[in-house]
Amino acid sequence: MEKFAYPPNVLSQACPSRRALEIIADKWSALVIYLLARGTFRHGQMLREIDGITEKMLTQTLRKLEESGLAQRKVYPVVPPKVEYSLTPLGETLIGPLGSLCEWAQDHMNDVAEASENPAS
Amino acid sequence: MEKFAYPPNVLSQACPSRRALEIIADKWSALVIYLLARGTFRHGQMLREIDGITEKMLTQTLRKLEESGLAQRKVYPVVPPKVEYSLTPLGETLIGPLGSLCEWAQDHMNDVAEASENPAS
Repeated sequence: MEKFAYPPNVLSQACPSRRALEIIADKWSALVIYLLARGTFRHGQMLREIDGITEKMLTQTLRKLEESGLAQRKVYPVVPPKVEYSLTPLGETLIGPLGSLCEWAQDHMNDVAEASENPAS
Repeated sequence: MEKFAYPPNVLSQACPSRRALEIIADKWSALVIYLLARGTFRHGQMLREIDGITEKMLTQTLRKLEESGLAQRKVYPVVPPKVEYSLTPLGETLIGPLGSLCEWAQDHMNDVAEASENPAS
């Protein structure tokens, strides 16, 4: 694969880092990775843990994360098949950055809600 | 405003932290905040710096960040009016988390591109 020698720059649309950012700078991707940081989950468990996600959105998000090398699924040859999802080593490098983002949301949720209710004049 | 006493939990759809996450876990919000971390910008400058953003998307993103208390605009009463955008103190608390996300994209862009080109069998 062609490697890019020029300095990576997420502000440039042609830079592969822009595509990498698009994959992760997304609410559902952030929540799925935030959950998988805790361990291995089945599809049905994730559906229950991530309140509000639809089955379709979860499937799409997991496929996107798999295709980008961030999550992996393991199929156990039992009847009915058991499928488990977890982070890859590459996906684990995101635990810090996406964890900070989710923690920011939890730490500042009242400030954001207050600003939304009291728009600056 | 009502404050929420239960532990914040971004996995819960009803928790205000979910709304806060939705605002920032977005490609264009991340790039706008990443740029504003460097200082004060005019609309036209931002349009040039953030490669690929449309005028409409930039306007929408800035409005969303303003309404959430993360960015502010200052209008100078000159002809033609001069308008400048910058982060609020609340927005500045995002420089770390969103900077990490953009840096992650730049540091791991080749891994992501490689995984996308060589899907696991």
